[in-house]
Amino acid sequence: MELTTQKAQQIVEAAIKKSKELDVKMNIAVVDAGANLKSFVRMDGAWLGSADIAIKKAKTARYFDMNTGEIGKLSQPGGSLFNIEHSNDGLITFPGGVLIKDGNEIIGAIGISGSSVENDHEVATYASNA
Amino acid sequence: MELTTQKAQQIVEAAIKKSKELDVKMNIAVVDAGANLKSFVRMDGAWLGSADIAIKKAKTARYFDMNTGEIGKLSQPGGSLFNIEHSNDGLITFPGGVLIKDGNEIIGAIGISGSSVENDHEVATYASNA
Amino acid sequence: MELTTQKAQQIVEAAIKKSKELDVKMNIAVVDAGANLKSFVRMDGAWLGSADIAIKKAKTARYFDMNTGEIGKLSQPGGSLFNIEHSNDGLITFPGGVLIKDGNEIIGAIGISGSSVENDHEVATYASNA
Amino acid sequence: MELTTQKAQQIVEAAIKKSKELDVKMNIAVVDAGANLKSFVRMDGAWLGSADIAIKKAKTARYFDMNTGEIGKLSQPGGSLFNIEHSNDGLITFPGGVLIKDGNEIIGAIGISGSSVENDHEVATYASNA
Repeated sequence: MELTTQKAQQIVEAAIKKSKELDVKMNIAVVDAGANLKSFVRMDGAWLGSADIAIKKAKTARYFDMNTGEIGKLSQPGGSLFNIEHSNDGLITFPGGVLIKDGNEIIGAIGISGSSVENDHEVATYASNA
Repeated sequence: MELTTQKAQQIVEAAIKKSKELDVKMNIAVVDAGANLKSFVRMDGAWLGSADIAIKKAKTARYFDMNTGEIGKLSQPGGSLFNIEHSNDGLITFPGGVLIKDGNEIIGAIGISGSSVENDHEVATYASNA
Repeated sequence: MELTTQKAQQIVEAAIKKSKELDVKMNIAVVDAGANLKSFVRMDGAWLGSADIAIKKAKTARYFDMNTGEIGKLSQPGGSLFNIEHSNDGLITFPGGVLIKDGNEIIGAIGISGSSVENDHEVATYASNA
Repeated sequence: MELTTQKAQQIVEAAIKKSKELDVKMNIAVVDAGANLKSFVRMDGAWLGSADIAIKKAKTARYFDMNTGEIGKLSQPGGSLFNIEHSNDGLITFPGGVLIKDGNEIIGAIGISGSSVENDHEVATYASNA
């Protein structure tokens, strides 16, 4: 199944709804199966620098078909993927990037940035299931 | 007046509506007064390469406080601004980037890419007035 | 309140004055609320490479609305924001980037680079309050 | 003679004074003999996108030890330096970048951007002689 604009916008709306519940201000990015940007919103008052991070989290998740935090565990000093962040014009490997699936098929990814990584991940997970 | 998320999303929705009327598939980008990305949508089937163009059109319009096509008239070979496109990590200077105003105040810009420059400009103009 | 040129230049002058008191040679950068460069000075004899660092410190502070050293505490190996520096075309996350406020409103940021991070931060803090 | 901070700031002030006389809003950049940024100011209301252009004009002039408009004559289609703008992370080759000399010695360059290229060049020439 393709990640349609309608579906992407629903995911963004779900992320906004969850962010408001948590009283946080997020940058929200959705990419499709080709890791190309599909939808983006910066909530009012959200960090300017988190726009690029949200987009990079979404791309990173789809680039490697795993949530960003999983990659970050391996990219630490001494780890097997140390400094993988230098590839692909910059990866972000801490939590907040989550795959979007249709059943078992990966159809895209969402990246959230604007609060603690725990909140970023929570909003991303919630919205990816929307 | 600040360009709020709500306003930015209304502008995106207006651009989608106009694009459907014209039967074209667009990438739509909105930046705020600081030229920072606020909202983005790629319509189903729209060109992948137009995502970056839409974003650059919106930024270019706000960078110089004029519609992108106006800059393009001056950046031709022999023109006074020849090759200005090499600045700011890449400008796009053909039509499709239009300012968003609140009265006389510039509060952001919209960039549209995905069809002819005439259609791009028409959708951008329509949405900027939404 | 907008960060005017006059205000930005006063902040730069305050940074130069404090730097001379400390007998250090600094690069000084001021960005506005949109994280766009407003003023810059490299003092005589200051490190060439610190020009880019000062600009990146100012942008980084405004990108995340906190002093740069705060981000650096979280971006260490094993930290929650490890390698965040790869975003936004390069962040600088050690001390020396400080917010500029008008009351509670963030109107910009200053970045200082050219000495120890303690001195960088001291000059930035002094000038941001000027 | 070295282009000191004091001298650079005097040049910037002269550029601001001339800009106000012409009722234009400029971005003003000064580089030293090493083509490294020494001073920068964006006047209130000046175009955001002209910051990078002003810096690139100053660097371009010093890179090739001639005013930017001279290079632009050679970089046109069919010209001997066609598309030289692709080098050095982006050159700007229309008028507004002018050398700063001490007698016959080139000690730096100034770049001005924010109005017509005629005004940009006039302000740059005036300030470079200050």
